[in-house]
Amino acid sequence: MSIVSMATSEVVLQVLSGAAPRLLSSDLGSSSSDLALYSKCHFKSVKKKGSRYFKSLKCSSMIRYHIGSYNYRRLVGGFDRNAAINRLGLLGFKCQQADHGSGVGMDEGNGAPFVDNANESNLSGSMNSQKKLEFEDSELLKREKEMLASAGTGTTTFYKSGIDSIEDEAWSLLRDSMVYYCGSPIGTIAANDPTDSGVLNYDQVFIRDFIPSGIALLLKGEYDIVKNFILHTLQLQSWEKTMDCHSPGQGLMPASFKVRSTPLDGDDSATVEVLDPDFGEAAIGRVAPVDSGLWWIILLRAYGKCSGDLSLQDRIDVQTGIRMILRLCLADGFDMFPTLLVTDGSCMIDRRMGIHGHPLEIQSLFFSALLSAREMLTPEDGSDDLTRALNNRLIALSFHIREYYWIDLVKINEIYRYKTEEYSFDAVNKFNIYPDQISPWLVEWMPHKGGYLIGNLQPAHMDFRFFSLGNFWAIVSGLATTNQSHAILDLIEAKWADLVAEMPFKICYPALEGREWQIITGCDPKNTPWSYHNAGSWPTLLWQLHSLTVQIHT
Amino acid sequence: MSIVSMATSEVVLQVLSGAAPRLLSSDLGSSSSDLALYSKCHFKSVKKKGSRYFKSLKCSSMIRYHIGSYNYRRLVGGFDRNAAINRLGLLGFKCQQADHGSGVGMDEGNGAPFVDNANESNLSGSMNSQKKLEFEDSELLKREKEMLASAGTGTTTFYKSGIDSIEDEAWSLLRDSMVYYCGSPIGTIAANDPTDSGVLNYDQVFIRDFIPSGIALLLKGEYDIVKNFILHTLQLQSWEKTMDCHSPGQGLMPASFKVRSTPLDGDDSATVEVLDPDFGEAAIGRVAPVDSGLWWIILLRAYGKCSGDLSLQDRIDVQTGIRMILRLCLADGFDMFPTLLVTDGSCMIDRRMGIHGHPLEIQSLFFSALLSAREMLTPEDGSDDLTRALNNRLIALSFHIREYYWIDLVKINEIYRYKTEEYSFDAVNKFNIYPDQISPWLVEWMPHKGGYLIGNLQPAHMDFRFFSLGNFWAIVSGLATTNQSHAILDLIEAKWADLVAEMPFKICYPALEGREWQIITGCDPKNTPWSYHNAGSWPTLLWQLHSLTVQIHT
Repeated sequence: MSIVSMATSEVVLQVLSGAAPRLLSSDLGSSSSDLALYSKCHFKSVKKKGSRYFKSLKCSSMIRYHIGSYNYRRLVGGFDRNAAINRLGLLGFKCQQADHGSGVGMDEGNGAPFVDNANESNLSGSMNSQKKLEFEDSELLKREKEMLASAGTGTTTFYKSGIDSIEDEAWSLLRDSMVYYCGSPIGTIAANDPTDSGVLNYDQVFIRDFIPSGIALLLKGEYDIVKNFILHTLQLQSWEKTMDCHSPGQGLMPASFKVRSTPLDGDDSATVEVLDPDFGEAAIGRVAPVDSGLWWIILLRAYGKCSGDLSLQDRIDVQTGIRMILRLCLADGFDMFPTLLVTDGSCMIDRRMGIHGHPLEIQSLFFSALLSAREMLTPEDGSDDLTRALNNRLIALSFHIREYYWIDLVKINEIYRYKTEEYSFDAVNKFNIYPDQISPWLVEWMPHKGGYLIGNLQPAHMDFRFFSLGNFWAIVSGLATTNQSHAILDLIEAKWADLVAEMPFKICYPALEGREWQIITGCDPKNTPWSYHNAGSWPTLLWQLHSLTVQIHT
Repeated sequence: MSIVSMATSEVVLQVLSGAAPRLLSSDLGSSSSDLALYSKCHFKSVKKKGSRYFKSLKCSSMIRYHIGSYNYRRLVGGFDRNAAINRLGLLGFKCQQADHGSGVGMDEGNGAPFVDNANESNLSGSMNSQKKLEFEDSELLKREKEMLASAGTGTTTFYKSGIDSIEDEAWSLLRDSMVYYCGSPIGTIAANDPTDSGVLNYDQVFIRDFIPSGIALLLKGEYDIVKNFILHTLQLQSWEKTMDCHSPGQGLMPASFKVRSTPLDGDDSATVEVLDPDFGEAAIGRVAPVDSGLWWIILLRAYGKCSGDLSLQDRIDVQTGIRMILRLCLADGFDMFPTLLVTDGSCMIDRRMGIHGHPLEIQSLFFSALLSAREMLTPEDGSDDLTRALNNRLIALSFHIREYYWIDLVKINEIYRYKTEEYSFDAVNKFNIYPDQISPWLVEWMPHKGGYLIGNLQPAHMDFRFFSLGNFWAIVSGLATTNQSHAILDLIEAKWADLVAEMPFKICYPALEGREWQIITGCDPKNTPWSYHNAGSWPTLLWQLHSLTVQIHT
């Protein structure tokens, strides 16, 4: 494959992969130049913002802090109530530095390793394919151990020449995009294009958009901004968010937030900074961001892996935050599937693109977040139910995706021969897919060697488009089997001209065109064929592709 | 309008409408011929089935009775645990006659009247439009009082001539479709066509398909079959239902069930009867039936109204059943909307037809079920949270549907002028609808006088098709305002040739054709244009249309 292998990719992978062992903090970000940069950045922020700030809770619309009211108590449940009260007490209303950790440090032993947990889950699980999953978990662990062993030597292959200047420019641009609150950096804005006057909400810190910045900063050893980001978004999680008197679940993380300066009452010369979160109630299309909480958990784990500072994830408020997100995801529903049911546009593709239902991206992130959470959750009275639900879901989810989302030439031939209208428990065509719905482009496009996970599966519906992020994360997290992971990369290699061409990686392939574009996107002029979310090219996908190619070839 | 007005429609309406006062049982089904029919039917069932039956819990696949395990406890929650245990204890494993009520009778005063509850909800609600809703609630109550007052005289307009023979034939056919279990009738099968050999799952009792039969039987005074149906489906609710190791929420009601005879162990000449429920895990397309639980609540209330026997709804196990359904519907989710998020085909249209997301039918039934449940719920320690959540949801849901689902010529013109890509809390085009997506047929079709509720609303998506059941039930339940209710009937009148033509009422209008049919139904050969769920004609819709025309013109 024509991908330049970079040592950093291996590190990224170890940070993100659900089962990779923790790196020592001394491995990363300890070079003198990094430290100098970090100090400068920190100093700049202090100079810029001064010392007297507090977080105002006055907020536009109907948003207000939410203490002890119905929703909160209901979601937190009996055994978490004390923790929840502590959390509110600890965070309080005043602006506080994120590094004044108010959490309770716990022994590292709490984050039980992957294999032990997998065995635990075997006790409660009852699926036939369990042994297969167990086996693959062990395989994954083995692979990751090999990666870790090679991490030390990986730097020797680092291509130094020509990279420094580009990298310096990238760092400079990244620093210019930093957002400060209470004198500390807490994130990076979504877009920083001085030539574009129509900012809409691109001047905000988006949770999903900060992830690549956050990972880069962690690898540079700049832990504080990530820690601040994690803690401040955690505070926002507790807010009541309302649209027309209806509130979504309490564990929801915002899609984005903004630092807004407003005049201080009674003092014209002074201003206060306010954090304005957006949970989708102001967003274009009013879509709640299902991926935000999942990304938050993944980043939290990466922070611990990189910095070695496990006290953050062990804090009571952070643990409660993890549990709230999990409860929201694991809540009982009507669905027969272990996949998360969402409305259109609730992830990276945050516009109407026909990815309602059970889109792959959400499922891959869900799996990653469940794995990460399992590693970080500290034992707590009454948390057995949550752990059991989590383990059961991991098993059911991986089986479901590996079995029903997979497509290759063999599977296409199977679908062509599907009998329809089968009513029984052991129907082959469980979702009643009509062979006629196999897209005309699919058979032409599918290489002899390779395959991928389809974009969506619903009753009588398979969305055969290739969605990059979902497939990448299925590999990174181990949701795809080893064979499937290899096959996905084989397909990317075979279809390089389509998926990459001369631009960065396409978000999906192929584009919706003509009548299909009209019907599925609702004639969205921003999503015309081959642009934006409709098979547009996204530089941010490259670092993830990098990571997984290293993983798969290690 | 060219609709024959029948007095029974008024009665049906009073039975179904969420806010109608209770009728005395002596008003209904007390004629001697009714009693004769009833006795005959009862006798027949006893003769046919004998006296020794028990309900086997052995069931195909992974289904088993579910006692005290994780899911059950989690959903039932702290304050309901005792009730849940009682429920299991009371129902036990043995077949029992439904009329051996094991519940605890309570005073009728528990079902607080509509207006009082509405006032209660005002205390906790905070929406601007609350006063409007309050006003409309009173309007609805007034209308229903008028209806009740006229109910006694309604029989004088009953068209006797020519109806008796048709009605007799209908009753005969209905009785032939009855299904017996433990010697008692418990439902009617979905289809009874001796010329059709391919039965698939039509030999089952479908929850949604039994509703019209159940209402007819209630009006005849045949309460037992309805009571049996309610209690046996309640028992099935507690079963663990699993597909590939994943279980949906515990409150889910089955889509259908079947009485199966199997040989008794060790005795070749004897058989046992087994109830086989299907929660969607064997269904074509694996769709969970979201509407089943909602219909169950609506039928339960109708039973109390007709029979005067409120002891059924007051039973502890029945109360727990109501609460379990409510908890499933009111559970925290990611959604910013108060509408229920479902996958495609989870209601009357139980195949892929593009009604994923927030289809109107589910929302109308949801509203009806919430109203009915509020009336029937008995006070219980710790149930304040549930009641508050229910009241809040009623307010938010009715506002949302009345405001955002409504379409008429005025609204079409508004949409044509929509600005898009508005990012703010007070955007006019909240869901970012592109004017280009207004369907070409819509402007031609919309009459000058009249309007309706659209089929679905999602971010950037309005499904402009007219869906009959959702619109009918929005009127019956009072989800639509008075003006909207009149406008819907005006539209039906103006579009009589399209919606009724020479056949019974169409399930939706217009049909999906050509490329749209391919994309949205996935080339479903059963749903070709103007057939089955794709704008096919359904006799069952007529009685509902009848009821609401009587309501609106009273």
